[in-house]
Amino acid sequence: MKDVKILKKDVLVPADIPANKKEEYIKNYLELTKNTGRLMLFAGDQKIEHLNDDFYGEGISKDDATPEHFFKVASNSKIGAFATQLGLIARYGVDYRDINYIVKINSKTNLVKTSQRDPISKSLIDVADVVEFKNNSGLNILGVGYTIYLGSEFEHEMLSEASRVVYEAHKNGLIAILWIYPRGKAVKNEKDPHLIAGATGVGACLGADFVKVNYPECENPAEAFKEAVLAAGRTKVVCAGGSSTDPKLFLQRLYDQIHISGAAGNATGRNIHQKSYEEAVRMCNAIYAITIENKSVDEALKIYYG
Amino acid sequence: MKDVKILKKDVLVPADIPANKKEEYIKNYLELTKNTGRLMLFAGDQKIEHLNDDFYGEGISKDDATPEHFFKVASNSKIGAFATQLGLIARYGVDYRDINYIVKINSKTNLVKTSQRDPISKSLIDVADVVEFKNNSGLNILGVGYTIYLGSEFEHEMLSEASRVVYEAHKNGLIAILWIYPRGKAVKNEKDPHLIAGATGVGACLGADFVKVNYPECENPAEAFKEAVLAAGRTKVVCAGGSSTDPKLFLQRLYDQIHISGAAGNATGRNIHQKSYEEAVRMCNAIYAITIENKSVDEALKIYYG
Amino acid sequence: MKDVKILKKDVLVPADIPANKKEEYIKNYLELTKNTGRLMLFAGDQKIEHLNDDFYGEGISKDDATPEHFFKVASNSKIGAFATQLGLIARYGVDYRDINYIVKINSKTNLVKTSQRDPISKSLIDVADVVEFKNNSGLNILGVGYTIYLGSEFEHEMLSEASRVVYEAHKNGLIAILWIYPRGKAVKNEKDPHLIAGATGVGACLGADFVKVNYPECENPAEAFKEAVLAAGRTKVVCAGGSSTDPKLFLQRLYDQIHISGAAGNATGRNIHQKSYEEAVRMCNAIYAITIENKSVDEALKIYYG
Amino acid sequence: MKDVKILKKDVLVPADIPANKKEEYIKNYLELTKNTGRLMLFAGDQKIEHLNDDFYGEGISKDDATPEHFFKVASNSKIGAFATQLGLIARYGVDYRDINYIVKINSKTNLVKTSQRDPISKSLIDVADVVEFKNNSGLNILGVGYTIYLGSEFEHEMLSEASRVVYEAHKNGLIAILWIYPRGKAVKNEKDPHLIAGATGVGACLGADFVKVNYPECENPAEAFKEAVLAAGRTKVVCAGGSSTDPKLFLQRLYDQIHISGAAGNATGRNIHQKSYEEAVRMCNAIYAITIENKSVDEALKIYYG
Amino acid sequence: MKDVKILKKDVLVPADIPANKKEEYIKNYLELTKNTGRLMLFAGDQKIEHLNDDFYGEGISKDDATPEHFFKVASNSKIGAFATQLGLIARYGVDYRDINYIVKINSKTNLVKTSQRDPISKSLIDVADVVEFKNNSGLNILGVGYTIYLGSEFEHEMLSEASRVVYEAHKNGLIAILWIYPRGKAVKNEKDPHLIAGATGVGACLGADFVKVNYPECENPAEAFKEAVLAAGRTKVVCAGGSSTDPKLFLQRLYDQIHISGAAGNATGRNIHQKSYEEAVRMCNAIYAITIENKSVDEALKIYYG
Repeated sequence: MKDVKILKKDVLVPADIPANKKEEYIKNYLELTKNTGRLMLFAGDQKIEHLNDDFYGEGISKDDATPEHFFKVASNSKIGAFATQLGLIARYGVDYRDINYIVKINSKTNLVKTSQRDPISKSLIDVADVVEFKNNSGLNILGVGYTIYLGSEFEHEMLSEASRVVYEAHKNGLIAILWIYPRGKAVKNEKDPHLIAGATGVGACLGADFVKVNYPECENPAEAFKEAVLAAGRTKVVCAGGSSTDPKLFLQRLYDQIHISGAAGNATGRNIHQKSYEEAVRMCNAIYAITIENKSVDEALKIYYG
Repeated sequence: MKDVKILKKDVLVPADIPANKKEEYIKNYLELTKNTGRLMLFAGDQKIEHLNDDFYGEGISKDDATPEHFFKVASNSKIGAFATQLGLIARYGVDYRDINYIVKINSKTNLVKTSQRDPISKSLIDVADVVEFKNNSGLNILGVGYTIYLGSEFEHEMLSEASRVVYEAHKNGLIAILWIYPRGKAVKNEKDPHLIAGATGVGACLGADFVKVNYPECENPAEAFKEAVLAAGRTKVVCAGGSSTDPKLFLQRLYDQIHISGAAGNATGRNIHQKSYEEAVRMCNAIYAITIENKSVDEALKIYYG
Repeated sequence: MKDVKILKKDVLVPADIPANKKEEYIKNYLELTKNTGRLMLFAGDQKIEHLNDDFYGEGISKDDATPEHFFKVASNSKIGAFATQLGLIARYGVDYRDINYIVKINSKTNLVKTSQRDPISKSLIDVADVVEFKNNSGLNILGVGYTIYLGSEFEHEMLSEASRVVYEAHKNGLIAILWIYPRGKAVKNEKDPHLIAGATGVGACLGADFVKVNYPECENPAEAFKEAVLAAGRTKVVCAGGSSTDPKLFLQRLYDQIHISGAAGNATGRNIHQKSYEEAVRMCNAIYAITIENKSVDEALKIYYG
Repeated sequence: MKDVKILKKDVLVPADIPANKKEEYIKNYLELTKNTGRLMLFAGDQKIEHLNDDFYGEGISKDDATPEHFFKVASNSKIGAFATQLGLIARYGVDYRDINYIVKINSKTNLVKTSQRDPISKSLIDVADVVEFKNNSGLNILGVGYTIYLGSEFEHEMLSEASRVVYEAHKNGLIAILWIYPRGKAVKNEKDPHLIAGATGVGACLGADFVKVNYPECENPAEAFKEAVLAAGRTKVVCAGGSSTDPKLFLQRLYDQIHISGAAGNATGRNIHQKSYEEAVRMCNAIYAITIENKSVDEALKIYYG
Repeated sequence: MKDVKILKKDVLVPADIPANKKEEYIKNYLELTKNTGRLMLFAGDQKIEHLNDDFYGEGISKDDATPEHFFKVASNSKIGAFATQLGLIARYGVDYRDINYIVKINSKTNLVKTSQRDPISKSLIDVADVVEFKNNSGLNILGVGYTIYLGSEFEHEMLSEASRVVYEAHKNGLIAILWIYPRGKAVKNEKDPHLIAGATGVGACLGADFVKVNYPECENPAEAFKEAVLAAGRTKVVCAGGSSTDPKLFLQRLYDQIHISGAAGNATGRNIHQKSYEEAVRMCNAIYAITIENKSVDEALKIYYG
């Protein structure tokens, strides 16, 4: 398959990156995308988002019961970056200095359901704190992430925070990734491809470098998803991995997202960390093979099955 | 037709422009209005306001599926300025340095309907950030825009933000444009000419340079709309273009707004960008012909039909 | 009639005026009250408060259709000051430098009725901005105004803002005027004289120089209104002019407010601006005659009828 | 009766008083308590809290109709301090420089009843403003007061403000007094002695110097009230005077509060100011006799009856 | 039993501790855990949380009626630290300089029940104030505490505050302890072990040093609680002591929490302070024996029974 490597000059530097932060932004971007412009993100914010449901119980490896599993896997496999909350990075980062980190700025639990009240997730920390933390700790923090629930009655609070997070991140040379999910009483079908294209368009308008959305559920999702990739324009689209599925289906879907829909990668959590350490590492490497090394599904499956 | 050119000395400089920003304000005003005092605004904030509904589907050109369409059209046609969110400008501005920009400060999606909850739209960014962005990027940012939903239960939050946006914009020599729409459970008829005149009056009291409102729906709208132009006083009134309509009707309406009602121009989105690149450019030029070049409807139609 | 002139030494300077602002406060106070301690305020905040209802329609002069009417009248008649929003002052002030201004800090529209939700009106601008605006523009801004709806479920938000507005105004040598109206689901009779006395007492506790309230509706309002004047103590009480009425009744009522109840003047809007330019000027002069020149009702009527 | 005088060394200086403010705190404390550790507070915040209901009507002296009555009484009688809003102090303080003042930081009206919505009272001014006002005016401001409605659905907003008010007051050497009343839909019996003891305990946890609560209504209130005095620990407890009652009953109750329950004094409003000037002065002196001069009820009554 | 002593080099210093605060953090950590990494926390925030219900009434020692009891016990027994609100520390700290303190940042009363409205508890003070207070007072303040109600409709407000409290505490070298309780209409079973493991995981993601949770109520709680200890990772788990129980059961449970579940200690309030001074001291020492001195239940009971 053709090489997907990019060079410094290929990196689009948005106009809100100040002159004295361009080098840093380009460095962060190339490091995050492993010089490809594609993103393999190990997403690990679920300890707040889903409490312990994703980490303990039937079908979940015992390895996943403790958060160090995240760091062991992230440290010993091929990934673009590992995304989680600042506090967790603070507790393990000193022993896992080799990992690239994305600091997830906001998070909520899954206890209050939409039937009770529309979702709201607010900043746990400011970008200024992340920058200070990066400087104080010396950790490889490449960027930040923020979740917006479009269509929630609290949408305006999250749009405001997200917009400022992107702006402040760029002002400091950091990569900005938005998780955008339509959700709330006003949202009939969260997986509607047209609505998801609305979400990626919002990501573009907020200036995100990457926007993470759910993959559509419809007849031909890979085809339908093209609308979202187009709507995002120069903002790259990555798909949420979703709940654990069959590795082959999972990797094929990822391949289709990239090669049919035009997505720029993935943000995978449960399909990695719910596996045992060994399997999780191999799954990372398999995802990485497709996303960054531009390998086929068969090649990736070989990696996964070791 | 008579020339509508104005000179530096014809520009009304509001009293909230500090002495050291007067030159810049006059320069921005003349550039924005192409030395006429009239405004041809290409309004492109709909990727948040209407999600992907305005950009993809039946009757919409495929060109409109990706946001670069905005910039190509804005760059290659005659317009006063292109208005959209800072984030989108940041992603494309580096390659479209010739465009005049208006930064839209706030935006909401169309998911939560008024029947569920009154509309609220909050700042995505501060004017101070816009000024910093302008300085850092060197882009031609001439002003800012903000939407108020009068009659919403959250009206007070938007009035407060809008008032400060105008004041801060002027303090920095920028043009301030308010989008004012009566909307909410308390509003029976959003297109009532008397209510729209209330909206333009609010624009005047908040010190806006331009106020964008909907065109009345009533028996003789061009006549009825005079009330709104009078109520606005020295604040110029421009009409929202609304959903796509027949070009002739559209251009005739625009002409009437200016020549019968006394409006100062238009802010058009869908009637431009939902067309193919070629047609969109010609539509911009046609609108510009009427608004800025003071041409007749027939002359403008000739431009539109190439 | 006896002269009501006061001198610099007669001005009560509240203890929250800093030493270096005493001269300015006294100057503002004497200018605002035309050396009488009485206030003839031309109140013109209705373009937000009542939208275009007060400016266009049956029984309203065509002159009132555009906001410059305010400024023409204010500039060419005898008044203490003209009160309106900063934005409107900014657009006309440069051509009307002779007018004394009071900047109305907050405003709301009349669209959301109390039956739907209790009234809330928030600051459009801070006192610090007003001071900056005064310095930048060189306009004769003598003070600020703020409206509180006592008994609203949002009363606490307005009490907090109002208290700070008065304190900040005084810190900068400006006069502070509070509009206080009991309103909300908890308020049975807004025109109850005892409740209005509660309102003037609140104005006193917040340190206002003047408190503007509605005139009671009851058997002997001039007598009943004494309670409110007493409750206000050293804070001067002025009456809202209310909707347009017969000039003779209007002037007689004003006279009674001053000479029976002990009020210190009036804040009149519709009874002035809904008239034609000529009549409006004469009405201002008539009101001024009673309020400031201590004339009789007959003398004032002669002025009004030219 | 035994002397209750204390000396500088007897004053407990809380640990949140910075070293350079200890002298000022001790001075304020001794002045406020007239060198006894006991507090006779003339509480006069009712012009907002109860509007004009407490100042005008049947059974209320005509002297009370205007706020200067407060100042005349406070100035010409024996009291520890007079507590009211900053704005009112600003208007009269220049002529009543001999009075010791406590600035009441927050206030609400009595219009919205608990049956409609739980009570909320927010800061009218910050402690920093009070300190600035004290310095600018040279008035004898000894401390600040703040009201919390425990059990209100807005309790958290008032707890947060109150805690900061105490901390900031102490940081500036000022005395901090909390008014704590259980109130709201969740509160069945506001006068329950156990609940009142909860309130005084909250005052202690917030670091107040004095906590003002309602006197219990139960079989043996003086005995039951001991629980509240114990719960308050080193925070002194004073009782609200409540609505006007028979002087003998009132003074006996005060005596019992001090000598049976162990309270440190009282905060009395209506039982003073609703009387004529002469009577009000004598009532202050009678209260002072019991509280500060450690006199008997009979001696105090003699003072009251002149 | 084996020694549980740790050395300076054994202290995990999280990455959000700045270089110049590492020594202080290590010192605070070792002092708080008495060089064991285990925590014996005397939790005394109940005077706000439970009003006087925990301090006065049947089955509660009369010693507990006044807050000095807390300080006497804390000062004369073996504990890691005493946790309470800043205000209370301020009033007693000057006489109890030997105690190690944890400042409880937020607190609410128990008046508003979840059936009425979901729980919300907001900061009474900022970490910056705590640091200032520590410096001004010279008291041994080792850290701060904050309560989150997961699953409350106000969860987002508490998550935001808690995250910043931890970050600011660490920035200043202080220990951060989170109290995390699932509570609200959305929470069916607060004592569900899986939900409690969700809570400890949240504590880890927020970067807390210790997370205090309720002990599960289920068939084999000590076994079930292992899930929570695992989920917390490097954040240490301590159990709330809960309401008063039989000393033997209480100490056995504590022993099991440490030796079966892997907990790092306890945070005990009522089981200490509701006892008489003598008994309370002995209970502290018994708890300390198990937690810090690694003694058996029998040895601890011998200490308790003197």
